[in-house]
Parts: sequence; structure tokens; C-alpha cells
Amino acid sequence: MNGADFTLDPRLAADTALVADWALSRVLLMDDARFPWLILVPRRAGLVELDDLGSLEQAQLLDEINRAMALLREVAPCDKLNVGALGNSVRQLHVHVVARRESDAAWSGPVWGSGAAMRYEASTREALVGQFRGRSW
Amino acid sequence: MNGADFTLDPRLAADTALVADWALSRVLLMDDARFPWLILVPRRAGLVELDDLGSLEQAQLLDEINRAMALLREVAPCDKLNVGALGNSVRQLHVHVVARRESDAAWSGPVWGSGAAMRYEASTREALVGQFRGRSW
Repeated sequence: MNGADFTLDPRLAADTALVADWALSRVLLMDDARFPWLILVPRRAGLVELDDLGSLEQAQLLDEINRAMALLREVAPCDKLNVGALGNSVRQLHVHVVARRESDAAWSGPVWGSGAAMRYEASTREALVGQFRGRSW
Repeated sequence: MNGADFTLDPRLAADTALVADWALSRVLLMDDARFPWLILVPRRAGLVELDDLGSLEQAQLLDEINRAMALLREVAPCDKLNVGALGNSVRQLHVHVVARRESDAAWSGPVWGSGAAMRYEASTREALVGQFRGRSW
């Protein structure tokens, strides 16, 4: 598998902090302190829809979604996890995995379209990224 | 695999029409004429999160998501597909697969939380369910 032609969409880059590169996906933390929120971006050029991935890479993405769910549960206890691949604004294939609390700013609605992001303080963001990296086996 | 203890959540039942039972999932058409929208509900009791499914059944669900995406493309040409497992209101595990158009009522936002459903005329709904069933190999 070769991700040499992969370039992260600049809008995704602007809204996130890098956590790690897993086998298939770049793992990003959404820079929105309202919701513990990871984004997985398969490092392949030209992907838009989930089924643009071949079946082996789809299975790998599924495995990484499971890992992201487990990581979020450890770092940010939650009432529900939301998983979604929308791509209406940014077409590059990416999967949101979001830890939701019944007390959060958008509950029980979706996080997408729920108003402006509230960026983390830099030190808080770095600490959180460190927590994810420390558990990102 | 035994789905004998499975019961569809009554809120999902009230908002949808039955398309078919696939190997794992009950396939439902959301009764909202604004968006061509299928919902897959794995027929297992007690599931809430994606990773409540074992790995074999997760792979089966992924296969059925692919099938739902292909079906929607055939029946309702679209600009983007949205796939999501949220469950904030209805906890029973279910996956939304929605055909989006750049001219639709919620574009570029998500369909969830986008206002009241506009129910199909009964004859339109039956015709659409028939189209999905005819292609539901």
C-alpha cells in the first residue's frame, strides 16, 4: 500500500491537530473543545465515498474506527459514540468518530452544523493529543 | 445467527417503511420524501454501538452498507452519499445511508436535525419500496 500521493485536504488540516498515522488512516483531533472528536482520513489519493476503498482497505478502516471508538471511551467517557462519513463540504473521504454526552452543546442533534467550533487552548490541545498518542497502540 | 429476540424500535418502525430483510440487517426506507434514505438495522437484540457487533457481523454490516450505497445510486442519482451511525435519540443500533443532492433541503448540512420529515404519498412510497426490492438481490 502506497500513500505517497496522499495530501490532506487543507480545510481538514486547518480544523484539526495531528494525532498519528495508523496503518491506513491519518488520525486527527478536531479542534473543537465542545466535543472529543477524532477524524480518520485513509491515506490514499482520490477517495470520496466509503466504497471507493477496496474491500481489504475497507476492513482496515473498520478496524481503525473500532480503535478510535475505544480510544475515545478511554480518554473521554461518553454516553454515545457517533460515527459518520458525510463529505458534503470536504469531499476527501474522512470518517468522524465523536464522543457525545447528553450534556454537550449539540445533544441530541448531530455535531455537524451545530455552530462554530470552540478551539482548544493550545496547552489543552497538546495534552489531549498526547493522551491519544500514548494509547495509540 | 439467530435474530429471534430482535424487535425493531417502535420509533424507527413509525418513521419508515420495510424494504427487506438482508442476511444481517432489516432494511428500511425513511418516510421522508426530501431525501432518498435507507436505514440498516442489524437484527440482533441489545446492540447500541457499532462495536457491539462481533467482527464477522461487522464485516457483514459493512457489506450491506456497500449494497445500500449501490442501491441508492441506482434508484436516486445523487451528488454524495452520507453514512452515519448516531443513535442519540434511538439507541438501537442503526446505520443511515442517505443519497444527497446539492439542491436538497438540508445541503450542505446533515439530514439529522434538518427539520420535520415530509412524508411520501402512499403510492409514491410503495413504488419506491418496490424499486428497492426489485434491486435487492
